[in-house]
Amino acid sequence: MVAPLKVGIAGLGTVGAEVVRLIEQQGATLAARSGRGVRVVAVTARSKAKKRGLDLRGIGWVESPQALAEDSNVDCFVELMGGADDPAFSAIETALKAGKSVVTANKALIAKHGLRLAKAAEQNGGALNFEAAVGAAIPVIKTLREGLCGTSVNRVYGILNGTCNYILTRMEQEGLSFEECLKDAQRLGYAEANPAFDVDGHDTAQKLAILASLAFGTKVAQTAVYVEGISSITPEDLRAAEELGYRVKLLGVAVRTAKGIEQRVHPTMVPKSSSIAQVMGVTNAVTIDGEGIPPITLVGPGAGGAATASAVVADIADVARGIRATPFGRPVDSLRATTKAPMERHEGGYYIRLLARDHAGTAATIARRLAEQKISLESIVQRHRNGSDVNGSTKKASPVPVILITYATSEDAVHRALKAVQRDRVISGRPQVIRIEKN
Amino acid sequence: MVAPLKVGIAGLGTVGAEVVRLIEQQGATLAARSGRGVRVVAVTARSKAKKRGLDLRGIGWVESPQALAEDSNVDCFVELMGGADDPAFSAIETALKAGKSVVTANKALIAKHGLRLAKAAEQNGGALNFEAAVGAAIPVIKTLREGLCGTSVNRVYGILNGTCNYILTRMEQEGLSFEECLKDAQRLGYAEANPAFDVDGHDTAQKLAILASLAFGTKVAQTAVYVEGISSITPEDLRAAEELGYRVKLLGVAVRTAKGIEQRVHPTMVPKSSSIAQVMGVTNAVTIDGEGIPPITLVGPGAGGAATASAVVADIADVARGIRATPFGRPVDSLRATTKAPMERHEGGYYIRLLARDHAGTAATIARRLAEQKISLESIVQRHRNGSDVNGSTKKASPVPVILITYATSEDAVHRALKAVQRDRVISGRPQVIRIEKN
Repeated sequence: MVAPLKVGIAGLGTVGAEVVRLIEQQGATLAARSGRGVRVVAVTARSKAKKRGLDLRGIGWVESPQALAEDSNVDCFVELMGGADDPAFSAIETALKAGKSVVTANKALIAKHGLRLAKAAEQNGGALNFEAAVGAAIPVIKTLREGLCGTSVNRVYGILNGTCNYILTRMEQEGLSFEECLKDAQRLGYAEANPAFDVDGHDTAQKLAILASLAFGTKVAQTAVYVEGISSITPEDLRAAEELGYRVKLLGVAVRTAKGIEQRVHPTMVPKSSSIAQVMGVTNAVTIDGEGIPPITLVGPGAGGAATASAVVADIADVARGIRATPFGRPVDSLRATTKAPMERHEGGYYIRLLARDHAGTAATIARRLAEQKISLESIVQRHRNGSDVNGSTKKASPVPVILITYATSEDAVHRALKAVQRDRVISGRPQVIRIEKN
Repeated sequence: MVAPLKVGIAGLGTVGAEVVRLIEQQGATLAARSGRGVRVVAVTARSKAKKRGLDLRGIGWVESPQALAEDSNVDCFVELMGGADDPAFSAIETALKAGKSVVTANKALIAKHGLRLAKAAEQNGGALNFEAAVGAAIPVIKTLREGLCGTSVNRVYGILNGTCNYILTRMEQEGLSFEECLKDAQRLGYAEANPAFDVDGHDTAQKLAILASLAFGTKVAQTAVYVEGISSITPEDLRAAEELGYRVKLLGVAVRTAKGIEQRVHPTMVPKSSSIAQVMGVTNAVTIDGEGIPPITLVGPGAGGAATASAVVADIADVARGIRATPFGRPVDSLRATTKAPMERHEGGYYIRLLARDHAGTAATIARRLAEQKISLESIVQRHRNGSDVNGSTKKASPVPVILITYATSEDAVHRALKAVQRDRVISGRPQVIRIEKN
C-alpha cells in the first residue's frame, strides 16, 4: 500500500477541530475509499493552550501557517483560518509552489486570489480543492467541475447564505420586520455582530463568483457581480408575494445572456412551486440549468462545523485518491475574461410596490408611464390601509399601496417609468422593486 | 498534450446517439475540462442502416459489442444497450479484462453483476463508471462515492422511479385512480406497455441496491431489498395523507439500524414539508443523511436521453481525466456482506386504513387489538360514506372507513394486531397499510 497522505492543518476553530476528529474517526473508511491512508501530521493555530477537546498527541505543532506550508513532512496543506489575504494567502501559495496540494474552505480568498493560486497549483502539479467554500457539504463544486462536465450550463442560481434565508423565512412565516429577525439571528449565532457582509449580499456574491467561473469557464471576478441586500424587504412585500404565488429569497444568479454572463445577487421573487422556494431557514440550495435537461437542484446545510468539515475531508480524500482536477474546471489560461453585464440591460419580470397618493388620475398616470416604456402588467393589486377593501372606509389623505407584477421587460425601462412616476408626484417615498426569477 | 481518449460506443438508441452528439458539440470544453481530448472512434448497434440523424463518417462501425470491447483502438468502452446479462455483460467484462475503462448507464446489469465487474476493473486498472444508472444527470453516485467520502451515512432514500412518481402525483392532484393514471403514463411514454417492472418497485430496488452499497460499504444485493409497488394505493389514501399532513411517494430507503442495513422499497408517507414531498411528476430525488449533518437532497431528471447522456459524458470525462475511483467506493474485497434485514422487525410509524363494519363495539375491538400490541395512536379519523359526518345520515349496513396513524411501532406488531382485527370480523376486506418515513 502507498504511504499515507500526510496532512497539515492551519486553523483549529470549529471546522479545523472537526476535521481532525473526522480523519481520526473515519480513518479506516477513508483509507478504503481513497486507496490510501490519511494522517494529520502537523497543525498550527493562534493559541496552542486553548482547550479544544482534541487529543493532539502524536501530531506536530508548528509555529505558523507559513512554517506549516514549508514543512517537508506535509503533503497536503489544509487552510481553515479564513481571511481573504495574508497569512492564509501566502501560506497557500507557498504550499502550492512546493508542489503540495491544498484544501481550503475560504470563499473570500478563492474569490479574490483563486486564479493566481489555481495557476500555482497547475504549474506545480498539486490540487487546489475548495468544495467547502460554497454550500459547505452540498457537493456543488464537484457537480459543476466534474458531474456536469459534458453539459453546457445556461444558468446557475441559488440560496447561498443561510443568515439571509433564515431572516426571510422568519419574516414570511411570522410577519416580523427585518430588524426583529436580524436580532434573533444574532442571538442564535446565525448572524455576526456586524451583519453587513451577510445581509448586504457580499457573502453570496463571493460564492456566486466562484460558481459562475466553474459553470461558464470565465475568470472569477467578484467585482463583476451586481449586489443588492435584503434590508429593504418588508413584511408587506412578503405578504404580497405570497398572495401572488411567489416567495422572496436572496438569490445569487449567474446566467448566460445574449449580452454575456450576467452575475447578480438580489432579493428575488421565485414561484412558490419551484424547488428553490421550498428551501427554508439556514438551508442552502443551488439549481443548475444544463442545456437540454431539466434543472438539477442540490439542497443542504450551507454552513456549520460538521457540514463544512465533511466537505474538507472529502477534498482531502480526493487528494489522497490522486484526483487533480483543474481548480476552476479548466486551465486558468483558458478561462475567458469576465465582463460585468450591465444591470440596466437585465431583462425579466418585476414586482413593483408603490405608495400611490389617493387623488383622481393617479392610476391613469402610473399606467401611462408604464405604457410609455412598453411595460405590460401581469397583475395589479391595490391595497387599502387597515385591510379595508374598495368598498370599505379609507382615509382620503393617506397614500394607498399599489402592487404591480410586470411581464418581462428591461431594468432600464422599469427605472425610466418609475422616475417619471416620481416626477409626476403621484407617489410617496421610494418605490420598492424586486426582480422575478422564473424556473 | 496527451493523445485523445478513444471511445467506443455500443448501442445507438436515444442515449447513445445523444452521447455521440454531445461529445462532438462539447469537444473543446471536454478537452479543456479533462485535460485531454475525447473522440468517438467506433460504434456498434443492432442496425447500421437505421436513421439516427447522426453523422457517423469518420467513426468506425464494428459488427458486435464483443468486437468493440476487443478493439485495440478503443480506450473506453461505453455500454448503452441495456439488459442485465449478455451481450452487455460479456462485452463489459472483456473490455475491463483488456485494461479498458467502461462507462455504462445499465442499472440492471450493475445491480446484478456489478461486483464481478468492479473486481475486473480493479484488477486491470480501468474505471467502471455508472453515474447514469441511478438518477440520470443527478450526480448521486459521485456524491456518495466521493463527495461524502469522509462522512458516515446513516440513511439514503429517494424517489428513484419517475413513472411511479408521475402516477402518484396525478392521482393526488386530480383524484384519479391508479389505473387511469397508468394508462395516461403509457400514452405519454412514461410507462412501458408492461409496466410491472416500474410500478411494482423493481426498478427502484435495483437503483437502491446500488446506492446502499456506495453508502454503507456493503455488497450490492438486489435480493436483500424488500419490495412493494404502488398498485394498491387509492385516491382515498392520498386524500387522507393530504389531510394528515403527508404525501405518498414510492421511496427506496436504505438505513442503518441496530439490526443491520435495512433496504426497502414501498409506498411511503412523507411529511408534506419535507424536501422529498415537493418532488412532483417524473422528477427524481435522493436524500442523504450523514452523521452529524443536516440532510443533503439532490433533485433532478431521473431519465430522458439528454439527462442520461449528460451523466455518461461526465463519466467519460472522468476517465479522460485519469480518475480511477473504485466502482463501489472501496475495493470489492472490503465490501461487507449484505444481510436482508427482516421487514417484520422494521420500526416506524404506520398509516392504516380499515373498512369498519358499522355495529356496536367495532371501535372498542380495534382499539383493544392495537393496545394488546402496545401500538399507540397519533391520530384517528373516521369517515362516513358519501361525505356525511357523524351527524349526517349514514347507511347503517355499509362499512365505514377508519384511518389510523400510529406512533413508532414494529411491522410485526401491526401485522399481529390487524390479523386479530380480521379474525374478530369487525372489518371488511384487507386493511391498507402504508409506512411513514420521518425526515
